[in-house]
Amino acid sequence: MTHFESELAALKEKLLLMASRAESAVNKSIRSLVEREDDLAREVVQDDDYIDGLEKEVDEQVVLLLSKAPLAKQLRLIISASKIARDLERVGDEATTIARRAIELNTEPQLKPYVDIPRMASMAMDMLNGSLQAFTTGDTQLAVGIIPRDKGVDDLNRQLYRELASFMIEKPNTITRCLHLMTISKSIERIADHAKNIAEDVVYLYEGRDIRHGVSPQP
Amino acid sequence: MTHFESELAALKEKLLLMASRAESAVNKSIRSLVEREDDLAREVVQDDDYIDGLEKEVDEQVVLLLSKAPLAKQLRLIISASKIARDLERVGDEATTIARRAIELNTEPQLKPYVDIPRMASMAMDMLNGSLQAFTTGDTQLAVGIIPRDKGVDDLNRQLYRELASFMIEKPNTITRCLHLMTISKSIERIADHAKNIAEDVVYLYEGRDIRHGVSPQP
Repeated sequence: MTHFESELAALKEKLLLMASRAESAVNKSIRSLVEREDDLAREVVQDDDYIDGLEKEVDEQVVLLLSKAPLAKQLRLIISASKIARDLERVGDEATTIARRAIELNTEPQLKPYVDIPRMASMAMDMLNGSLQAFTTGDTQLAVGIIPRDKGVDDLNRQLYRELASFMIEKPNTITRCLHLMTISKSIERIADHAKNIAEDVVYLYEGRDIRHGVSPQP
Repeated sequence: MTHFESELAALKEKLLLMASRAESAVNKSIRSLVEREDDLAREVVQDDDYIDGLEKEVDEQVVLLLSKAPLAKQLRLIISASKIARDLERVGDEATTIARRAIELNTEPQLKPYVDIPRMASMAMDMLNGSLQAFTTGDTQLAVGIIPRDKGVDDLNRQLYRELASFMIEKPNTITRCLHLMTISKSIERIADHAKNIAEDVVYLYEGRDIRHGVSPQP
């Protein structure tokens, strides 16, 4: 392995560290809601600075590596790394939003057992997990398969939005709690978006095709 | 001007075209709300594909230019271009969200004259305008001055959220409309976030300092 290759490997390593911290932030934020545990929520809010710092570190390495005039394939890895880092940073932000709303919700009686939200969250997390696995293994089939699953999470979010809106109209004393749940549902939907972005970046990285906003005709 | 320099100039040109389309999308989306004009809203939704396509074109040029092993300063321009394109693409998405909600709102009687939303929108647009002007002129003082203004838009969004939540509790028959207005307010807040991101990219571009997540000590 050349020095340059080992620097690339270190970049990948840092990205995976970022990914595991972002995933754990989302998991903790959902647990802070379901288990009504403020301490977990506070951990998520505190840990976000660390994820933000990792994004900066990734970008510093990206600039350094780009200046060494790499080959096309290495170039794509470096560019993808920067994009994936930005998505993971945003996943961390969404986890923070969920955690903050969980803290608010935990001060009031629970509306009903949370079923849809943990289900949506596990769909989004499976997508995130899969896209990161595709990144690590170069399995672009896996990445391509993740992209349409975003629609399922979007649909659930829209369904939950409608249900919560009706619930608010029936029982105006639940409005504040319903608004918090809407925000959490939207945050999970955005985590799925980020997972989809990462899957698209993985296809770009290994196949050189930009498939955002619909699949372009293959060259 | 060398061939490489003229390619860089073309990249900047394309980014400014993208910026003007994104700005016009936001303006139209707000007008579709205030003037209750569905046609304008539909234009915004249709034009979004064009903005998405421009982002792809910017990124293709970015990869091409990066492979030519540029100097550090040129490198920063290319990387910033890619990031700014992503932010502008998201501004376009937020304009689409505003336009869709405007179409929904325009089917029902107006709650009251819109005052806070156009005010927030013009704050966000001033920030976007300023950050793009800083990008064009290299005025990093201007860029640095834009960053703290994001807080003002955040505060207005939070205030409007609270007002709308109280209004919903008092008058449950306004809930659907209040929810649309909350989404629009949040979209404007995100446009201001993107403007702030662009301002941070401008500082990075011209001074080489990464000031995201708080200003780091100057080297």
